[in-house]
Order: sequence, then C-alpha cells, then structure tokens
Amino acid sequence: MTDFRYHPEIAKLGAAHLFTPDLEKSVWFFHDILGMHITARTDTKVYLRAAMEREHHSLVLEAGDRARLDHVSWRVRRPEDIEGFNEILTANGTDVTVQAPDAEDGIGESLRFQAPSGHNFRLYYDVEKPDVAEEDRSVLLNQPYRSWHHGIGVRRIDHVNLHTTRDPAVTRDWLSDNLDFKVREYAMSPAGLIGAWMSVTPLVHDVAIMNAGPEDPTPARLHHLAFWLDNAQDVLRAADILVEAGIKPDQGPGKHGVSQAMFLYVRDPGSGHRVEIFSNGYLIFDPDWEPVEWTMKDVMMALTMWGPSDYIPHTDEHVMNITTEA
Amino acid sequence: MTDFRYHPEIAKLGAAHLFTPDLEKSVWFFHDILGMHITARTDTKVYLRAAMEREHHSLVLEAGDRARLDHVSWRVRRPEDIEGFNEILTANGTDVTVQAPDAEDGIGESLRFQAPSGHNFRLYYDVEKPDVAEEDRSVLLNQPYRSWHHGIGVRRIDHVNLHTTRDPAVTRDWLSDNLDFKVREYAMSPAGLIGAWMSVTPLVHDVAIMNAGPEDPTPARLHHLAFWLDNAQDVLRAADILVEAGIKPDQGPGKHGVSQAMFLYVRDPGSGHRVEIFSNGYLIFDPDWEPVEWTMKDVMMALTMWGPSDYIPHTDEHVMNITTEA
Amino acid sequence: MTDFRYHPEIAKLGAAHLFTPDLEKSVWFFHDILGMHITARTDTKVYLRAAMEREHHSLVLEAGDRARLDHVSWRVRRPEDIEGFNEILTANGTDVTVQAPDAEDGIGESLRFQAPSGHNFRLYYDVEKPDVAEEDRSVLLNQPYRSWHHGIGVRRIDHVNLHTTRDPAVTRDWLSDNLDFKVREYAMSPAGLIGAWMSVTPLVHDVAIMNAGPEDPTPARLHHLAFWLDNAQDVLRAADILVEAGIKPDQGPGKHGVSQAMFLYVRDPGSGHRVEIFSNGYLIFDPDWEPVEWTMKDVMMALTMWGPSDYIPHTDEHVMNITTEA
Amino acid sequence: MTDFRYHPEIAKLGAAHLFTPDLEKSVWFFHDILGMHITARTDTKVYLRAAMEREHHSLVLEAGDRARLDHVSWRVRRPEDIEGFNEILTANGTDVTVQAPDAEDGIGESLRFQAPSGHNFRLYYDVEKPDVAEEDRSVLLNQPYRSWHHGIGVRRIDHVNLHTTRDPAVTRDWLSDNLDFKVREYAMSPAGLIGAWMSVTPLVHDVAIMNAGPEDPTPARLHHLAFWLDNAQDVLRAADILVEAGIKPDQGPGKHGVSQAMFLYVRDPGSGHRVEIFSNGYLIFDPDWEPVEWTMKDVMMALTMWGPSDYIPHTDEHVMNITTEA
Repeated sequence: MTDFRYHPEIAKLGAAHLFTPDLEKSVWFFHDILGMHITARTDTKVYLRAAMEREHHSLVLEAGDRARLDHVSWRVRRPEDIEGFNEILTANGTDVTVQAPDAEDGIGESLRFQAPSGHNFRLYYDVEKPDVAEEDRSVLLNQPYRSWHHGIGVRRIDHVNLHTTRDPAVTRDWLSDNLDFKVREYAMSPAGLIGAWMSVTPLVHDVAIMNAGPEDPTPARLHHLAFWLDNAQDVLRAADILVEAGIKPDQGPGKHGVSQAMFLYVRDPGSGHRVEIFSNGYLIFDPDWEPVEWTMKDVMMALTMWGPSDYIPHTDEHVMNITTEA
Repeated sequence: MTDFRYHPEIAKLGAAHLFTPDLEKSVWFFHDILGMHITARTDTKVYLRAAMEREHHSLVLEAGDRARLDHVSWRVRRPEDIEGFNEILTANGTDVTVQAPDAEDGIGESLRFQAPSGHNFRLYYDVEKPDVAEEDRSVLLNQPYRSWHHGIGVRRIDHVNLHTTRDPAVTRDWLSDNLDFKVREYAMSPAGLIGAWMSVTPLVHDVAIMNAGPEDPTPARLHHLAFWLDNAQDVLRAADILVEAGIKPDQGPGKHGVSQAMFLYVRDPGSGHRVEIFSNGYLIFDPDWEPVEWTMKDVMMALTMWGPSDYIPHTDEHVMNITTEA
Repeated sequence: MTDFRYHPEIAKLGAAHLFTPDLEKSVWFFHDILGMHITARTDTKVYLRAAMEREHHSLVLEAGDRARLDHVSWRVRRPEDIEGFNEILTANGTDVTVQAPDAEDGIGESLRFQAPSGHNFRLYYDVEKPDVAEEDRSVLLNQPYRSWHHGIGVRRIDHVNLHTTRDPAVTRDWLSDNLDFKVREYAMSPAGLIGAWMSVTPLVHDVAIMNAGPEDPTPARLHHLAFWLDNAQDVLRAADILVEAGIKPDQGPGKHGVSQAMFLYVRDPGSGHRVEIFSNGYLIFDPDWEPVEWTMKDVMMALTMWGPSDYIPHTDEHVMNITTEA
Repeated sequence: MTDFRYHPEIAKLGAAHLFTPDLEKSVWFFHDILGMHITARTDTKVYLRAAMEREHHSLVLEAGDRARLDHVSWRVRRPEDIEGFNEILTANGTDVTVQAPDAEDGIGESLRFQAPSGHNFRLYYDVEKPDVAEEDRSVLLNQPYRSWHHGIGVRRIDHVNLHTTRDPAVTRDWLSDNLDFKVREYAMSPAGLIGAWMSVTPLVHDVAIMNAGPEDPTPARLHHLAFWLDNAQDVLRAADILVEAGIKPDQGPGKHGVSQAMFLYVRDPGSGHRVEIFSNGYLIFDPDWEPVEWTMKDVMMALTMWGPSDYIPHTDEHVMNITTEA
C-alpha cells in the first residue's frame, strides 16, 4: 500500500477577533442588525455566532482604542493537527506561540503565528459548543437557532479578505506551503499578483490575500469579513434592513465575477470594519481544479459582473443622464 | 341621485413606438434578450408584446435614420372615451388629429396629440388581439404565452419615463387636467418640480414626467420604457442574461425609494433607447392618496434606496478602498 | 358630450372583522407571527394594519364565544358613494342599515347589509389614518412602517374568499349588479358555478364567492382572508416562520392556476380562521377583460399549478414510493 | 512527526448511468427541460453535464429494454487512490473489477464493484474535460456554460438517493468502512435504520441509503438523482417549466427537514427515473460533526418541514375544506 507522510489539515474558518473603539455600537450592528447570537460576554468582550453555528463563536468583539483585526482563527481537522502544524510552521521558519486553553473564549490549546502579510492567525481544535437556550432553538434538529430569529439572520461565517502592503504572492505561497490552502481564482496585473482567492474547503475562498494600496498606514489590513445567507434575495432584504437602520452600504447588492457570489458590503458603524453579506456562488469539488486567472482586461467583470465598480474611476459621462429623442 | 358629467378614462398604458437606426439589432434585444413575442412584422416595422399581453403589441420597433420615441399610446376604458377625450383636449386648446383605423398595427380609430412637453400621445380603444400560436401557449388558461418561454421573459409593459426641457409642472398639470393622471410621488428642488410620477391605474406610475438637462438637443426625451417581472430575483437573472449577451447595464440591479421597486436599467444596443426591468414596488388603492414629496435632502433615497446613484457625483474617496488595520 | 348616470364605486377592500374565542392567541398570530401592527385596542377588540397600510385597520379581532367573520368592509371611492350605494342597494331590494361614525374603529358613516350568500358587508369612506410611532417608521417616505419590522411582515390585505351553501351565481350577480364587481376568473362544474373570482381593482380578485360543501353548518362561511407579500420567496420564509412557531400550514407553499399567485394557507390557532399568504399573480388592466373559465378537467391546475391538491382525493398509490430498478 | 497510513479519498459524486426504454424522450427531459448539455453521443448513449461541470459527463443515458440505474460513479482525489481503494475493497471482501479506460465515456481506468445493497459503484480519477463550444460559453472565466443557457439550467449534480430491500445499516457501514463516507443525518424507526444521509464532501449528503419497501421487485432501487440550483426561487421556476412542458411533479416545491433543502421531485417521462431539483440546505465543515438523528416522531418534519408529505397517509379529513362561520 502506498504510504504518505502525515498531513495536518485545516477544516474550516473559525472566527475573526475584532477590536472596536465602540463596543456597544458594534454589538448592536453584529447582533441586532446582522442577527448574530451572543454566547458569552464580559465587560470588554462579546462572543457571537450565527444561526447554523455550534462552536463557541465565529466573531469576537473586543473594546479597544482603535479598530483592529487581532487575528483570524481556523479549526483544524484532528487534535493532533495542532502539533502537526506547529512542526511544519516552525520547520519553515515561522515563529509559533502555543497558547494555553482559554476558558473565556471556549478555545482549547492553540497556535498563534503571523503570516508574511503581517496578519495574525490562530489554529485550534478543541472548542466548546454552548447549548442554545430553549426559547431560541429551531424546531429543526439540524439547526441550532430558530430560522429568521432576528435581524438579517446570517447563517454562518464564510471567508475573510485580507490586504497587505507586502507582496501578496509571498503570503499566497506561505498559505499554500504551510497551511495547504489552494488557489482557486486569482487576479494578475502586469506588476504581478493583485490577489488570490484560496481555500481548504470547497468554497471558492476561505481567505483572500490582496494587494493593499501603498497609502495604507499599516502593512496588514482587513478588507472584509463575510457572512453567508442562503438566497440572493436574502441579500436584498439585508440591504433594506441596513438602510432602515440608518446604515449606508459601501457597495451592492451586486454579483462578483470571481466566485459568482451575490455581495453587499457594509462597514460596522462602531468600528469601520467591513462585512460582506454573501450568497450564491459555487463549490469546487474537482480534485484537479485549475485556478482561474483574471487579468486587467477582466478586472471589471471579476469585481462586479453586472457593474459598475467603485474601484473603476468614473468618467465624466454620467451614463444615466443619457436620453433618446422623443 | 347625484349626477356627474361624463368622464372619459384611460385604462392602461398601451405601447411605445420607437424608431431605431438598427432594426435587426433592436429586434434581437427586445425579442431574443428581453423575451418579447413578435405578433406581426413588415420590412420596416416589428410589433411585439410580452408574456401576459393580449393586445396586438406593447412595443413597435420601426426602422429610422435615428433613435426616436415616436409616440406613447394609451388604451381608453370605453369606446366612447375616444370622442370624450377629443372634446376635452380640444376644448383645452390641444390640437388633436383623428387617425383612421390601421390594419397594420391592429389599432382602431385613435387620437394623436402632443403634450406640452413635446411628447406625442395616442389614445385608442379598439385593438386586435392576435391568437398565440399553439406551440407558444401556456398551459395556464389565464396566460397567453408559456412561462419562461425565452430570454428574460418580461411579463408586461409597466410605465414610461419622459424627460422634457420645458417645465415639467406644465405637463404634469396638463396630464391631470386632460387625461386625469394623478400625481402619486414627486420630487422638488428649490427651483421647482424635478419630476412627477403619475398614474391612472393603481401602479405608482404609468408615466413619469421629469426635468431634462438643458444640454438635451430636443425638448422631448425618452429616459426609459419599463417592463415588469414578478420577482426581485427575476431582475437579478435578467442582469445575468444581459451581461452574458455582451450588454452592459447602465445601472442596477437596485431598489428605488420612489415606487420601492427593484430596477435594472439597460439601453437597447440597436437604438440606445433605455429600458427599465422592473419588479416589486407597491400598489395604490387609497382613493384619497396623498402624493409623496421628495426633496433634495431625500433625492439619493428617492433614486436608489441602497445607493449609490450615478446621478450623484462621486467624491474622490473610493469608499471600497477603505480598510481597517490588522 | 355623452352623459352617463352617476356610478358609485368601491375603491378597495378595507378590512375583515373577525370574532375569535381566544383573542390573545389570535393577536399573537396576526401581530407577532404575520407581523401586523396594532393601532388601537380595548379589552375585547384589537385593530391591526399591515406595513403599507395607512387606514385605521385592515383587520379587527374581537373576543367572542366562537370564531365568526362578522363582516367585510370596503372603502368607496368618493364620500357621496355612500349615499350612491345606499340608493342602488335599496332600489334592488337589499336591506341597508346606516351606521353612525364609530370613534373606536376610526370609521365614518357606513352602510351595513347582507349579500345573498349570507355574508355581511360594510361600506365606508371616512376613515382615520393614525400616525406611525417614530420608532416604527420606515426611512422611505412612501412607506408607513419600517421594512421587515417583525414577523412575516405582510404588506397589505389582498382579498377575501367567501363560501356559501346558497347558489354562488346569485351572489356573483348581486355583487356585479349592486357593487360593480367584475368576474375575472370562474370555475364551472356540470352542476353550475363552483366559484367566481371578482374584483373592482386590477387585482385578479378582491373577493371570491365559492360553493360551500352541503355539510357546512351555516350558509355563510369564510374560507380565507389573504395578505400580500412582495416576492414568492417571502412566502417560503413565511412557511419557515410558521413552522418554527409551531403552526402547521394547511397547504403550500404552492402556486395557483387561478390568479397564478404563490400561496400558503394557514389557520389562526386562536380562532381557526384561515389566512392565505399570497404573492406574485398578475394584474388586469384590459378594459374588455374576458373572464377566464376553468372547467372540471382543469380544476387541478386551477387550484395548484404544481399540484397536488388536497381537494383531490388521493389514490391508493403513493407516487413518492415509486422507485426504479438499480 | 505523527505518521498515518495512507487514506484514499473520494473527491465527489461523478455521474449516474441510467438505462432508459425511451432514449429520445429522456434526452428531451434531461437536455431540453432540465437544461443539461450534451458532450457526446452515439446511437444508444448520450453523455450530458450541467452548467458548472467540466468533466465529460455527470449523466449517461443509455437505450435499454427497461429503466435501470446501471451504476453510480465517483471521482477519487488522487490517481493513486484507484489502487488504494482496490486494496481496501478487496481486503474487505468486495469483488472488484478493474475496467480499462473507455474512450467513449471519457473515463480512465476505473474500478467496478457492488455495494451490499446491490447497487453498482464505479471509481475513477482520469476523465476528459471537453471544451465548451464558443457559442455556449459564459463570459465568466470560472463558468463553463452561459448562465440560463436553456431550460431549467441545473448547475451541477448533487447527490443520489438509493433504496435497498436489504438492511441499509449494512450498506451504511460498508460505505463508511470502505469509502469513508460519514453519516451526517439518519432516520431511525423502532425496527432499525430507515435511512442514512452520508457524504465525503461538506454537502449534507452525496449519497443516501434508505430502506425500500418489501414490495420492490429488485433489491437495489434508485429513488432519485439530484441536481442543484442556486436559489429556492429557481426551484419554483423549475416547477413552472415542468408543468408548462406537460410534466407533473411527484412532490414539491417544498423544504426538507433533513438537509433543510428546497426540493422538487419529478420523474423523467422517458424512463420513470426520478430527479430531485434541489437548492439551499447547509454545508458541514465541523470536523467533529455529530450525526443528527430523526425518529418516528420527527419523520414528518424530516421529510417536509412545511408538510404535508405524500408518505404520510392522508386522513379522511380534507383540511382545506374547513371553513369558519360568517
């Protein structure tokens, strides 16, 4: 029988840990408006999860002096993968800190390290799964929280989009070599890689690593954290809910070329961290998936299939002012 | 018993008659892409109707040297309303031409006249209702054409949006005094009326009369002709179909504040005439409806509830470039 | 000028007044679950309206010893139509009671009378339009309540479906002769009219009058009261919400042939009165609409386009048990 | 470093190979109506794939004397997994045939064997990926076929539901022990396992193995083959298309408790093989997923969240005949 070396694996995106200068407002946004559920809280931290999530949290909001993504956490496939990844990362030159279990956040032993992009990652296996209060439960045996419990009702965390002033290609390779992320789609300019959408799951991306603009004040940036809704029309409803709550979206609803997903971008009024409300798209099951390349001539389609894109400078011509003779 | 003078009534928007410099391409757009059905054609004219329409046509495409809306036709409620409206219009100083029945377009005797805005209108009652070929029929007894027959599959004509370099308030009053259109919503600037959305049906508007920009080369302009789809998500599907056909929308999918409708604007590649693909919104049954006023401070919401609007000049700040520290 | 006798008109369906043996539970159903808004209440009566409704109420729930539809109210087009209809009804032999304005229900002077079917009707013009509390208002200037305020979020009342053990054809004619309802679609059996869908608005029906089964204990029955949602998918969301609340629908989601509308039927747990949650369908603007006839061979399609229908006795064969050889 | 024995893996459901007594009609159903695309054909076989599929086929229709599922094929993760699975299956007592590459169906070397249930399985790695003809291509670089190309437009194969007169628990264990399928949800009766929904992907199931009724003429049965659509509303559109084509669904649209997916069941008129048109649902990324158990008291919810289910014998009471007094 063929015999391969052991391969630790990441199973899924776990959570994002965000610092916010206005905890109360961010809790209002993520809990009341996005519809997440609070599992635990202290004076300075609030732990939240979405309707289909069993783990302790997929989002941590922590009071801080400024908005900052502290780290992104990922759940590994087997308990022994913690040690497995520690070996690989260390052997490849990444400084890894082993963090003891944290009763407060429900996470067991974890690894903390930094990607070349400057972003902090954390790997864990053991995690608490708090029960759902009876009054919040779904009648469905396979669903933790009641359908349409409150707010937009995001179903689960989907992906995280990270920007870096450093070469994204370096982080792309590091993600691949160390954590076994596979490039699914990527965008190239004559100057090099603009961004890569990568995953360990069949989602088109669990993480995207993109080129930040040179004006960004720190090398590692969060562009957005995405949450999933089941239907395109749920994204339209989300837009209504945001606007009714006095929150103006950044862009959307629209449809990306990359991932083919419905999107709606909005920044948390409490912190300015951006969220993407996300649906549709497609799954990648092909074991020999050929990464899809988008070049500058496709960039408009890559960003917004139905256009236009805020990334593309508007011309002086306001197309909606065009009329025909009558 | 109270006794009132006879009131002729318009029952519905009938059709738009468009000249196009590229008839073949416009037919491809309206028939193949929007999914309308051809009921009759000559070398220079093509008559089309939508899935739920029984009348001879809701759209005429005619070959011409340039793009031009020739006229908008309206069906009156009773045969005697033709004479009724002739009396009212003439008494109020509008020149009316009586046009004999036209076998080619299936329309009986009709009135032709011009609104103060410069737009040509036509009123008719008698109209042919060609059968649907058996292979195109729906199994539903109340639906002419088969569901999802081809293309986007627009269901019916909805409204027409007319721009004028002349004072829209004059035409608003003329539409009200002569044809009994009621203002449902309107937008005001300090300089006066920007536009009025008016209807004789419970739709929020059958016709809108808006202020054109002073740069428009002729006084009477067509901003768009709208066709209806049943669901917001059908508008998203329409966007896919347009982009797959190589046609870039002008704006949308989005949601208007005025009318609350889902919209998608796209110009016919053959003529440049703009079409609005339209869904949702609301109906007005209240007999004492108070027209809704939108002022400059609401104009963004009026145009696009979820924003942004191409009408609003973009600032230098590209909001989608904002990221937070990680 | 042609001169016609004055014609009073009904503008819209106003409200249904329902007695319920469990007011608290019915309020929970109509307010919490369907998402209606309470405008006024006493110990024994609760007044509710939907998200897009400005009038005092479209539903009255009153505590009673048993479930009973007390009456259906309709708003007339002009104040003088109250007197106009009184004259017509009285001249045609219907006993009409003039009811003085009722401060409690916000309705001005009204007429009360009974249809041949045994159903009580009420006509009014004057009606209060209570303001919406600031915290409940929409940001949209043309929408009273905030989008997706709570529960299913029904948008407006749509129609009422009445059964009678008496000949529905008699009531059909009476509705036409007295109140100017027009038949839009109807179903025939060899024994005669099964039901007629009639309207004064462009909706396919504001009222349906149907043949009750001979076993019904009283001649006049309420089959259902319908409320509108904008999209077919909103009806699917409604089904989720009902089931999560422990309420089992009677039938649906499905699609009717008659009206082409998406439907979901559910009975109020407090009273057993049935509600139809309703979307899509089509509008009738043709002034010379030919009523659509459905006969016994089409009855399945008429009721549920996608089938099956609970009205059609199931055969012994359970079609979902059929499998093919592997 | 930890060292584990090599584990061959199945990457995805590949295809179903169906015999049909009416090839032409089945091709009409799967191609014209479901919207699949033909990649190759001979006098007796037609190969089809869906809009997002790159492999040679996800469905083979072959002319035969009767309807029969010939086999289900699965793609393995690595080329060496063919040998890997051969070893495991053989060691565990399953007869395995190695089939040489088949130029006609585009499949490389494959394994053929039978599950204890009597169903034939096939494993492969190498597979041709025919280009899409230019006129059929999407403008999207990550999508093979044009969006909404024709018909219902199914996006990809989703799962297969197999019935057996033999003990499904035996096959459940065999699928787990040999092919590493994991139970995600299962249904139990006092007599034992009714069915298990199992997957190797994050889909709730790639395969279901269920208890057939004792009256089934052969031990191995196909209950249905499922294809995916992106939105619940696309399933409603599919229902319209089927009924317009004269095809009556077996059940649905509806929503399952198990998997939470939107469903619509319909049998191919050419063969009687059943297809499930499928959307929504949820994905399982948790590495320590606890299989969800449904018992007899939940069986209604398991099958159809919104009920009713054709599996549940109807009582004499026709709930839709209930009316309330008026």
